[in-house]
Amino acid sequence: MSLFLKAIPVDSAVRIVREISSPMPEEMVPIERSYDRVLARDIPADIDIPGFNRSVVDGYAVKSSDTAGAGESVPAMLHLTGMITMGTEAGLEIRRGECAYIPTGAELPGGADAAAMVEYCDSLGDQVLIKKAMAPGENVVCRGEDFASGENVLPKGRRLSVQDVGVLAAVGINEVPVRKKPRIGVISTGNELVEVSTIPTGGQVRDVNSYLCSSFLLSLGCEHTLYGIVKDDRDLLRAALRTATEECDGVIISGGSSKDDRDMSADLIGEIGEVMAHGIAISPGKPTIIGRSGEVPILGLPGHPASAFVVLLIIGRALISGMTGEENGRIVTNCAVLAQNIPSSKGREDYVRVRCKEGMAYPLFGKSGLLNTLVRSDGMIRVPAGSEGIETGEDVEVILW
Amino acid sequence: MSLFLKAIPVDSAVRIVREISSPMPEEMVPIERSYDRVLARDIPADIDIPGFNRSVVDGYAVKSSDTAGAGESVPAMLHLTGMITMGTEAGLEIRRGECAYIPTGAELPGGADAAAMVEYCDSLGDQVLIKKAMAPGENVVCRGEDFASGENVLPKGRRLSVQDVGVLAAVGINEVPVRKKPRIGVISTGNELVEVSTIPTGGQVRDVNSYLCSSFLLSLGCEHTLYGIVKDDRDLLRAALRTATEECDGVIISGGSSKDDRDMSADLIGEIGEVMAHGIAISPGKPTIIGRSGEVPILGLPGHPASAFVVLLIIGRALISGMTGEENGRIVTNCAVLAQNIPSSKGREDYVRVRCKEGMAYPLFGKSGLLNTLVRSDGMIRVPAGSEGIETGEDVEVILW
Repeated sequence: MSLFLKAIPVDSAVRIVREISSPMPEEMVPIERSYDRVLARDIPADIDIPGFNRSVVDGYAVKSSDTAGAGESVPAMLHLTGMITMGTEAGLEIRRGECAYIPTGAELPGGADAAAMVEYCDSLGDQVLIKKAMAPGENVVCRGEDFASGENVLPKGRRLSVQDVGVLAAVGINEVPVRKKPRIGVISTGNELVEVSTIPTGGQVRDVNSYLCSSFLLSLGCEHTLYGIVKDDRDLLRAALRTATEECDGVIISGGSSKDDRDMSADLIGEIGEVMAHGIAISPGKPTIIGRSGEVPILGLPGHPASAFVVLLIIGRALISGMTGEENGRIVTNCAVLAQNIPSSKGREDYVRVRCKEGMAYPLFGKSGLLNTLVRSDGMIRVPAGSEGIETGEDVEVILW
Repeated sequence: MSLFLKAIPVDSAVRIVREISSPMPEEMVPIERSYDRVLARDIPADIDIPGFNRSVVDGYAVKSSDTAGAGESVPAMLHLTGMITMGTEAGLEIRRGECAYIPTGAELPGGADAAAMVEYCDSLGDQVLIKKAMAPGENVVCRGEDFASGENVLPKGRRLSVQDVGVLAAVGINEVPVRKKPRIGVISTGNELVEVSTIPTGGQVRDVNSYLCSSFLLSLGCEHTLYGIVKDDRDLLRAALRTATEECDGVIISGGSSKDDRDMSADLIGEIGEVMAHGIAISPGKPTIIGRSGEVPILGLPGHPASAFVVLLIIGRALISGMTGEENGRIVTNCAVLAQNIPSSKGREDYVRVRCKEGMAYPLFGKSGLLNTLVRSDGMIRVPAGSEGIETGEDVEVILW
């Protein structure tokens, strides 16, 4: 008695979801709303940054050669010829034996090649004593040293971080070309499910997966439409799938937890479109379905929330990246030493939840349906399909939640 | 010649921003929009979860004692008395010698204490052969095993993760009590600044800090109002500060990069309110100002974007946490081995940007005004105030961006 079609390896499943997902069209968003969006194009610097030789200290612009050998006891004495102001051209030229006051961030005047910090200088009327020998370029950022005009500063497919948006400002990108947010429809199936606002009675459970999915989608910058709970009725479920695939860019349907429900979901995806995979060699999460209707990818999750969550992270994230055009998914990992043996079966990837403390990873074994280990853990460890487990004391990589 | 008031330790600065920030009022948001919000109250389970003894497999509900000694060659033969359906009460009682079909997720009937997986069973009309001895409780999650009614499932002050929202659904929280998003006003000062859409000419630079701040605020779930660039004019700047402190819950003003500009910001904060600190023993980021006007905290950042960014992460994050009520800031760190000596001065905390590769952390030294090392690095290492540096080969903790 086979519960599923032949389970395919995780790598193949990821390849399939990448194949059936295509990047969303481009849209322009104002720079102050571009954080966490995915760049649709490479961004070049439009100008040299900085656009001029810039002092990074408050002090005096000098010719470094004029300060050769200078020190506390033998300062160089230079003639003060002016003050540079912020935001304007320097407007003067430093000749041998001369200096000019310069504030942090101002343009170094012609002829000068260093800025002496005010802490090492004494001003005496129109003479300035420089008590430190300056090297050429000292305390100066040269024109184009940060970014050269034309240079690519941020690559297409990058999810914009806080500092990336700062760089966009520096290179003059007021409107940012990003991928539109995909809208993903979410359907929960199962006769046992009741709304969150309902008190479950005998045999009923609340619909957790709709909200696990909506949060997951928000975390990856997607929009979502919740289609709510659909009872295990072929006509109702087919209608919901049709509506969702018409209204959305992708659909996540979280399965009934029983075999019959799961098979019905797969059947119906096959009716309105195509099933590409039914069963993945992953634990937890084996009864996962990958399909599509026209150009709209469909991911069928297991009913157990804890299993659904692992599949969202491993397969769902790859699917969404295919749609947002994100090049490097932002899986954050941490290294740790395993505190307890993890046994595993060859031929499937196991994901074991762990708690991290002082560089050690403590596996939280337990029934895959439990939510409490999900919120009490820090992440999970992947046991590759070719491995029979990981032993105490081995270095492991924890995929952080 | 002292550039700043006495610089205070980073710890003191963090303590001050915590003291002058108070948690925002509570508001209710729909569960499907609660991801990444901060809980304003402890959340207890309203019911036992699961609310019944639940099978985690498709198979047969049995009395485990009936299967004692059973195996492939000596199966236990049980009388099939019914089928449990999903989402309803089991509605039957298992007596000695009996079993009932049960799907994954359904309620275990009275009298049964285990569920035998269908893979280990053969059905022969109304007889079922069980080919494996079952332990009491096997393949069953007991009532209340995940969460017991009344138990705290999520603490006040927690920023809701994907899986946390799943738990909220399980415990019936349809509307979630969270802290309102603080609205933070952002002002950039400096005569050298021009709009992002402008091509800078001699001595001018584009306003990067407004967008670094707005992105930072979005990353922590805050709203922002950008007040744009204010030239270094006391009246204009005082007016902008007044407006921002009236309209917002907090204000970030990013300083002119020169000493005079910084001093003017501090003066004006003193005029309209109170300066609590001017100068922090942190590098980069020393010329930081902490103040307030009435109940509205004000953070004055250094003008250089790269310095401003470090101050946002170390001081700004603590300030925002005080307002959102977040208990544990979500600084993500990774362990690595230092690939190159980092020298440092005693008496200040140094933050050095690093790139991580294969467990090694490579310091990116360089002028603090550069943006390119910000986007090309993975995080930063903190060198504590009491240390003179960190040596090659030492274990370090990288604060990831």
